Amino acid sequence: MTGENSLSKVAMKNTETDNSAFKEFVKAISDKYHATKNPNGIRNIGVAVNRLNEKELLEKLNSINQITEDNLDYADATGTSGLREGIAKLLNRYFNPCKDVLANQVVVVNGCTAVVDLITTLTCDPGNAVLLSSPYYVGFENDVKIRANCFIQKVKVPHDELQEISQIKYYEQALEDLRLQGIQSKLLILCNPHNPTGMCYSRKAVEEILRFANRNKLYVLMDEIYALSVFRGEKWNDLPENESERLYNFESVLSFENLNELIDPSLVIVVHGLSKDFCLNGFRVGWLVSPWNQRILDAAGVVSPMYYISGIADSIVSKLLGDEEYVDYFLNLNVSRLRDNYIKFTATLREKGIPYIPAQAGHFIWIDLSKHLLQWRNKNLKDGEVARNSTTELTFDDELDMWRGAINEGRVYVSSGTNFRAHEPGWYRITISVPWDELDVGFNQFLKYITK
Amino acid sequence: MTGENSLSKVAMKNTETDNSAFKEFVKAISDKYHATKNPNGIRNIGVAVNRLNEKELLEKLNSINQITEDNLDYADATGTSGLREGIAKLLNRYFNPCKDVLANQVVVVNGCTAVVDLITTLTCDPGNAVLLSSPYYVGFENDVKIRANCFIQKVKVPHDELQEISQIKYYEQALEDLRLQGIQSKLLILCNPHNPTGMCYSRKAVEEILRFANRNKLYVLMDEIYALSVFRGEKWNDLPENESERLYNFESVLSFENLNELIDPSLVIVVHGLSKDFCLNGFRVGWLVSPWNQRILDAAGVVSPMYYISGIADSIVSKLLGDEEYVDYFLNLNVSRLRDNYIKFTATLREKGIPYIPAQAGHFIWIDLSKHLLQWRNKNLKDGEVARNSTTELTFDDELDMWRGAINEGRVYVSSGTNFRAHEPGWYRITISVPWDELDVGFNQFLKYITK
Repeated sequence: MTGENSLSKVAMKNTETDNSAFKEFVKAISDKYHATKNPNGIRNIGVAVNRLNEKELLEKLNSINQITEDNLDYADATGTSGLREGIAKLLNRYFNPCKDVLANQVVVVNGCTAVVDLITTLTCDPGNAVLLSSPYYVGFENDVKIRANCFIQKVKVPHDELQEISQIKYYEQALEDLRLQGIQSKLLILCNPHNPTGMCYSRKAVEEILRFANRNKLYVLMDEIYALSVFRGEKWNDLPENESERLYNFESVLSFENLNELIDPSLVIVVHGLSKDFCLNGFRVGWLVSPWNQRILDAAGVVSPMYYISGIADSIVSKLLGDEEYVDYFLNLNVSRLRDNYIKFTATLREKGIPYIPAQAGHFIWIDLSKHLLQWRNKNLKDGEVARNSTTELTFDDELDMWRGAINEGRVYVSSGTNFRAHEPGWYRITISVPWDELDVGFNQFLKYITK
Repeated sequence: MTGENSLSKVAMKNTETDNSAFKEFVKAISDKYHATKNPNGIRNIGVAVNRLNEKELLEKLNSINQITEDNLDYADATGTSGLREGIAKLLNRYFNPCKDVLANQVVVVNGCTAVVDLITTLTCDPGNAVLLSSPYYVGFENDVKIRANCFIQKVKVPHDELQEISQIKYYEQALEDLRLQGIQSKLLILCNPHNPTGMCYSRKAVEEILRFANRNKLYVLMDEIYALSVFRGEKWNDLPENESERLYNFESVLSFENLNELIDPSLVIVVHGLSKDFCLNGFRVGWLVSPWNQRILDAAGVVSPMYYISGIADSIVSKLLGDEEYVDYFLNLNVSRLRDNYIKFTATLREKGIPYIPAQAGHFIWIDLSKHLLQWRNKNLKDGEVARNSTTELTFDDELDMWRGAINEGRVYVSSGTNFRAHEPGWYRITISVPWDELDVGFNQFLKYITK
C-alpha cells in the first residue's frame, strides 16, 4: 500500500507556502563561522540575537541552576506563581505601570511567537485580518497564519511618519480596503520599540493609534519586547545624528494613566518576554499581561497547556527575576553595551556614507543600501538583463539576489528588507548586538562582497 | 469606558465549558498533604505522576545540568539534532522497530498534550470527530478541542473486549453514527498500553483496528506513552490473578513488520515522551514519530515554533538519553518498583474484596467500587432522595459526589471514573506510582471515608 491521506486544510496551506527565505536563514545558522572549526562558515550579523552578555549571563544562570522535585511534577500551565510574581515585579519596577501589575494578570507561554499565535486565536476567527504597520518583523505573518489561520494586513507607514499622528490615515485606508473586500479585522499589533527601525513611538502617536483601534473595536497587542533594550532616548540625546531625528522615551502602555479616555482598556494586551531584553531566545519564555481583561486571561488559561514551558526553565527564570539587584545590574550592562556598539557602528556608517534610520532600541540598525544595490546589480547582470539607470528601477528580486549572494559567496548573513516588507528595495537590517570585533569584520566582509 | 469586545468563536466556546472537575483537581494539587507543613492537606493517589524514583532522577539530572551558550540561542524548533538522535536511539533500543528510526523522523514538542493538539490540527478540519475507545484519559477531549476545534467520538468498548478483535464492531458503529449525522472523522487515537486499565493490547487487536482505520482512511495516532512502564507481561505472568486475565507483551506499532499489509503506513503516527516512562511530567518534552509520512513531519515542522521546548530542557534531555547505561538502569529500576507496588496494592484489593482490572503497565489500577458507592450513597442521601436498591440504580452524579466528598472531607484525591467516561458509575483510578507508605495510608484513608 502506498499514498498519503489528505492533511487538514490548514496543514495543506502551510506546507504549500514558499519558505525559500527561511531556508537561507537555516543555512546560515547551520553553517556558522568559527575561527578554527569552520573558518569558511557564514558570519551572522542578521538575526535578532543579543550575544553581548553571554559570559555574565551563563555565570549567573549556572549559579541558580538546581533541579528540584517540583520541577519534575506538573505545575500551573500559565507559569508557577513564583514565576508570575517575578514577572509582575519586573513590570512594576521597569514599566512604570499606573497600578501595580499582579501575578494573576500574567500568563506565561513558550516564547513570544507562541503569544502572538495565542492572542490571534483568542481574538480573531479564521480568515480575519490583523493590522500591522510595515516594515515589520516578518515572523508575524507566520505567527498569525499557521495556527490561527489569519493574515497580516500591511499598513504602509513611511519612516518619517512612524512617530507621528499623521500615520492614522494609513490605518484608516487599510481598514477601508478590507471593508471593501468584506474582510473583518479584530486585532492590531503595535511594536514599541519598533522592529526593524529601532525607533520608540511618541506618546501622541500611540494614543492616536489606540483611539483608532477603539473606534473600530480592534484589540491591540502591544508588543513591548524591546522595552528594556532602549539605549538612547530624550535623556541620552548626545550623539551626532541627522537633524531630523526625534528621540522619545519608551513609554509602556501600562503606564498610560489616561488609557480609558483613549480606548476600552479591555482591548489592550501587552506582550513581553526574555528573548530580547534578557538575551535568552533559547529559553522560550514569553508572557502576556492584561490588567484590564479577565476574560482574555481566563481564555488564555484554558489553552495554556499547549504552551506549557518546562519546569526547569520556570524555576531558573523565577530565581533570575527574583534577584532584583542582578536584574538592575544586567539590564544596565546590556544597555550600555548596546549603546557602545551603536556609537561605533553608526560612525562606520557615516564614514562610509551609508544612510540609516537613527535607532533608539533593540538589537539592530535599518540601513539603506539602495545605491550599493544599483552598482552591484549592474556589475552582476543576469543573461538578457539590461542595466538599471537609477535606484527607482531596482526590484525586490535584485535585493534578494544580493542578499543570497552575500550569504553564499560573501559568507555573511544580514537581514534583507524584503523579509521585513520594506517599501522599496535596498534596505537591510544589521544586528549590532554581536561582539564588536565580529560585527566590524562581518560588516566589512559584507561591504567587500557587495562592492566587489 | 467599559465593556469587553467579543473573543474569537473558539475562545468563547472554550471559556463556556464546565471545568468544575478540573477545579477539584487544582484544589487537590494546591493543598497538598505534607507531614509537617500541611498535615490536613489532601493526599494525592489520583494523578498519573510517578514519584517512585525522584531521588535517583534528581541526582542524575543535576549532574548533567549545565547551561551553555547554545542554550541561550535559537535552535531547531523541532528539537536539536542531538536530542532527536537521542530519541531515535531510545526507540531503536526499546521499541524494536523493523527498521532503525532516524533522527529526522522525530519532531519534539512541549509535551504530549501538545502532540495531540498538533496531530489533530494537521489531520483534521474543525468540527471533525476523533475516534477513541472509552474509558479513556479525559484530557484527550481538551487536547482535540481547545485549539483544533474537533471532538472525541466515544467508542464504548467493554473491558473484556479491549484486547479482542471483536471490539471492531463498536468502532464500525461509532463511524456509522457519525455518518448519519454527516460528521467526518479522519483520526483515531489508540492508547497502548491502555489508560486507565493498564492493559496491553493483543497484537491481533491492534492489527484489526489498523485494518479498520485503513478501510475508512483514518489516521491512527498510536499513543505509546506508557511503552516503557510495562511491569507485567507474558514473561512475568507469575502473579495470582483472576483466571480470565490475558497478559500480552507490549508491541510497538514501529515493530510491525507486516504494517503495510494492514494499513497505508503513512496513516500511522507514534507518540511518546518523557512524562510517564521517565517520570518527568514537569519537563514538557514529548515527540511524534512517523517513519512513513514525510508530509506530516514537514507540516509539523512548519508549526513547531508554537511548540518550542526550552533550550535548557533540550540540553539536559539530550544528555540523559545519550547515556544508554543510565537509561537501562533507570527503566529497569522504575519497572521493578512499579511491579512491587502493584503486587502489594493488588494484595490489599483482594484482601478487601475490591474488584479490579489486572494491569500490566502504567501508573494506576482501575477498580470497581460500585458496591461501596451504593452503601455510601444510601448513608449520605440528600434531601428528598430515596435509597438505591442496587448498583444498577447508581448515577454518575452519585459517583462524583463520593469523589468530591473524598477530596473535601476525606482529604484524599483519587481519579473518578466519570472523568474517564467509564461505562457505569463506581469506577475509580488509583495511582500506584507513589511511595508505598503514602499509597497505603492514602488508600486506607480513602476507604475509611467511603465506608464511614
